[in-house]
Amino acid sequence: MFTIPTNEMQERFTLILLKYGFTKERAFQCAEIFTNSSIDGIYTHGVNRFPRFIQYIKEGYVKPEALPSLENKFGGIEQWNGNLGPGITNAIYATDIAMKLAGQHGIGCVALRNTNHWMRGGSYGWQAAKAGFVFIGWTNTIANMPAWGAKDAKLGNNPLVIALPYNGEAIVLDMAMSQYSYGSLELSAMKNETLSVYGGFDTKGKLTNNPSAILESQSPLPIGYWKGAGLSLLLDLLATILSGGLSTYELSKKEIEYSLSQVFIAIDISKLDNHSTITKTIEAILQDYRQSIPADESKKIVYPGERVLQTRKNNLANGIPVLKKVWDEICLL
Amino acid sequence: MFTIPTNEMQERFTLILLKYGFTKERAFQCAEIFTNSSIDGIYTHGVNRFPRFIQYIKEGYVKPEALPSLENKFGGIEQWNGNLGPGITNAIYATDIAMKLAGQHGIGCVALRNTNHWMRGGSYGWQAAKAGFVFIGWTNTIANMPAWGAKDAKLGNNPLVIALPYNGEAIVLDMAMSQYSYGSLELSAMKNETLSVYGGFDTKGKLTNNPSAILESQSPLPIGYWKGAGLSLLLDLLATILSGGLSTYELSKKEIEYSLSQVFIAIDISKLDNHSTITKTIEAILQDYRQSIPADESKKIVYPGERVLQTRKNNLANGIPVLKKVWDEICLL
Repeated sequence: MFTIPTNEMQERFTLILLKYGFTKERAFQCAEIFTNSSIDGIYTHGVNRFPRFIQYIKEGYVKPEALPSLENKFGGIEQWNGNLGPGITNAIYATDIAMKLAGQHGIGCVALRNTNHWMRGGSYGWQAAKAGFVFIGWTNTIANMPAWGAKDAKLGNNPLVIALPYNGEAIVLDMAMSQYSYGSLELSAMKNETLSVYGGFDTKGKLTNNPSAILESQSPLPIGYWKGAGLSLLLDLLATILSGGLSTYELSKKEIEYSLSQVFIAIDISKLDNHSTITKTIEAILQDYRQSIPADESKKIVYPGERVLQTRKNNLANGIPVLKKVWDEICLL
Repeated sequence: MFTIPTNEMQERFTLILLKYGFTKERAFQCAEIFTNSSIDGIYTHGVNRFPRFIQYIKEGYVKPEALPSLENKFGGIEQWNGNLGPGITNAIYATDIAMKLAGQHGIGCVALRNTNHWMRGGSYGWQAAKAGFVFIGWTNTIANMPAWGAKDAKLGNNPLVIALPYNGEAIVLDMAMSQYSYGSLELSAMKNETLSVYGGFDTKGKLTNNPSAILESQSPLPIGYWKGAGLSLLLDLLATILSGGLSTYELSKKEIEYSLSQVFIAIDISKLDNHSTITKTIEAILQDYRQSIPADESKKIVYPGERVLQTRKNNLANGIPVLKKVWDEICLL
């Protein structure tokens, strides 16, 4: 297994980003998010995605120097324009502002338009939760999933992130509205695996667990069928009207996915209750949850984000596993 | 088909509630929600549920006279104690307060503890959206769904409601985290139907679309398998720590489901953009959505809450279809 030490990866990313017009601070922020996502095992939105990020910068879709600007505000809600800056720096900034607003108003909401792919959405859940805040955030995407009962893709898979502080770490749910991401469908197809549950439709509109058939039809299955499709539509509607930005429909007129709409909500729970009471409550819930009787005795019942902690420990100790091909490509950037 | 005119149903409910210690105003509120849910075709949480509501009052779980009291507040967030009052009046009140807070802070959040079943959660989405607000709300429930990979139920199906104003009406998503509600499983079992998709596990832990087998195992399937299970856990964690109330785990120690925890978030979008711009944006999204190519040409692609409008029109014109047995039971209360 080819591995890269975490500091080497982060330094390499930083150097490349500096070359492409990033300021020192913004190069550091982006390099850190790409590296941390890889440390946590989210390679599809970490190291594996880095070359495409640079590609979008080269092609002018992502503007390294652009800063977000305030468009509109009232109390605890603010509307920001991402000005097509990097999705990562915009999202870090929006999360910070949402937390600042929550500090002032108990709850804060930043709606961000004209931004770019935030890579691993969970990053901003971790950011807010480690700072002691509850976080609810989501993004829209280009159309990549059919409405319920439809054959063509009109909905995005619009990832939703919900996070809360726990034990100095965080519980972070980071889920797209499709049962499987395109990344994991591609991986399974490459390995000739079948999916453990239905992942989408084949070109004849039949449910299938064959990842290649789903990639061919471009019809992944919404989680919970009609339910995930409905949730996806609502998340897009809210992101669009709150930010005044582009909807999945507008985004999908373009060939490349850029100029997204996102929402960042933070709640300052320290204003409602003290830290130790909250921690005790969470402990009690998780303790009961863990006492679930596993269907397969060899498998532990885990909470969202729990597995990440083990991967993080391993990768910090042993380096980040990377496909040699991907790393070689990065070294040429 | 046995039907009851809407005004007759609402009057009957009001009279019964007055008999059980409700004030005039609160009797009216509850009777209206039960009737409106039935008009909209949500019979399971409307007319069919009314006898159980009265039963819980008789047994002392729901206290008709109890009023919510403020426990804690900071800026746009408030923590309220429902004091075991009726779930409906508490939820209407919490939604009103969330909208008032949103009017002051742009966004408002009410976390409510010690409340009771809010019946049809969508009611509060309609309430807020028809008043011009975006609404996000959810409730926890007793454990009725297994964690992912588990055999026993440790999670609630914790319904989530998201709503926004549209055209004087609303787009309202009202979805539990289980693929099918117990109500619809019971209905299908009664009719000897199989479910259109997997709805849960049989007693051997195998996925099945046989509703009777799921009712026997008490293991309904979370939407999107591991995803809906994770979302359910997070919704319970947030409802519990934000309200300072009971978690699904604590609730499930009791035989009867009462003293729930709920969250009501309202956003005053009129503070960010004007009504006509927002309406135009929504129109454009829905217009594209409706142009989806249907898999079955006889079926229209609809948005969440759209079908309700037709049912509402029919039931307002022709009366509410009710099982004779249910209505006879109500008339004896």
